Amino acid sequence: MSEYPSILLEQAVNQMASLPGVGRKTALRLVLHLLRQPEPNVLAFAGAFTRLKQEVVYCRECHNISDTELCPVCSSARRDHATICVVENVQDVMSIENTGQYNGVYHVLGGIISPMDGIGPKDIEIDSLVERVSKGGVDEIILALPTTMEGDTTNFYIYRRLQNAGLDNPPKVSQLARGVAIGNELEYTDEITLGRSIVNRTDFNG
Amino acid sequence: MSEYPSILLEQAVNQMASLPGVGRKTALRLVLHLLRQPEPNVLAFAGAFTRLKQEVVYCRECHNISDTELCPVCSSARRDHATICVVENVQDVMSIENTGQYNGVYHVLGGIISPMDGIGPKDIEIDSLVERVSKGGVDEIILALPTTMEGDTTNFYIYRRLQNAGLDNPPKVSQLARGVAIGNELEYTDEITLGRSIVNRTDFNG
Repeated sequence: MSEYPSILLEQAVNQMASLPGVGRKTALRLVLHLLRQPEPNVLAFAGAFTRLKQEVVYCRECHNISDTELCPVCSSARRDHATICVVENVQDVMSIENTGQYNGVYHVLGGIISPMDGIGPKDIEIDSLVERVSKGGVDEIILALPTTMEGDTTNFYIYRRLQNAGLDNPPKVSQLARGVAIGNELEYTDEITLGRSIVNRTDFNG
Repeated sequence: MSEYPSILLEQAVNQMASLPGVGRKTALRLVLHLLRQPEPNVLAFAGAFTRLKQEVVYCRECHNISDTELCPVCSSARRDHATICVVENVQDVMSIENTGQYNGVYHVLGGIISPMDGIGPKDIEIDSLVERVSKGGVDEIILALPTTMEGDTTNFYIYRRLQNAGLDNPPKVSQLARGVAIGNELEYTDEITLGRSIVNRTDFNG
């Protein structure tokens, strides 16, 4: 006999446990919680994911998730369309938007180059970035990818592609400032970050 | 503008975050993971919960979740139908089954009496337990509820109900052994458990 008293229950637990970081005990707890909800709530729960998958649109400019062909950021006249911030994914756009410090537009790669995971330049939105820049009107590309080896590789690849694109007015390419996080004790900052912060020290704006 | 670039995405995140213990950041991560899966997988994910809610059956004897009118335990001729273990929920049945130490049948209350949460005796399967016992053929009721105040209250209530049911042959009522968990250091056992273990000490079976 199966560990579960019902095949329907087992299938629901299997699906819940397929989510990353959700173990089988947690999955069972979540499924039994759902089962205690009224039927319309369970239908709304299930329907939200189906609808998202079937109806989601990706912005034709920046490739961010959107409800419309052009996302709210790309269609806003108040944003600076000459500055493009290149990010790995949707969460990164939301994180930068939450800072309230950025007024340009985005380009969502949908991943970063990672030979270990079999992700090459063709698997992410790099061609569309080069094409977008080729149309002109872009003054600056801000590379805001993770500060990992894969992020550095992708940064370098994008930089080379833009250099070799034969642009009349190539945009300035910048990257996020790296250093000791604000509010961090030096004692708890990793050695590589701390070392580079000393080498790349900046003028003190007393 | 909403924090999310898409209303569909926001709705899916709201639904995921409605699960107990799932915060909004985790919910977003899980939803974006789902969105990266092929459409049939997302449909299977959503469908599993809808199907469970719409098609689940509760065993007419023990009220455990089941695929059939009588669950595998209640319909098994190899189980001892004269011994009924009373538990709070489905997980408890699975936990006891996993021990491989129990050969009787179950009665799933679907909750315990908790005035604080507005759960009274009528909200859980106590009437059906008394009715089941009244039919005769039950030698022992094992109360296996949580060792909390609510569990104790529910134990006591069931005990009184069975006493007052006017049964010709009232079943013996027992409860799970309580004491120091096996493998535990005394140092880390809570005082109440340790104190009661001394008072309720048992003969040493050298």
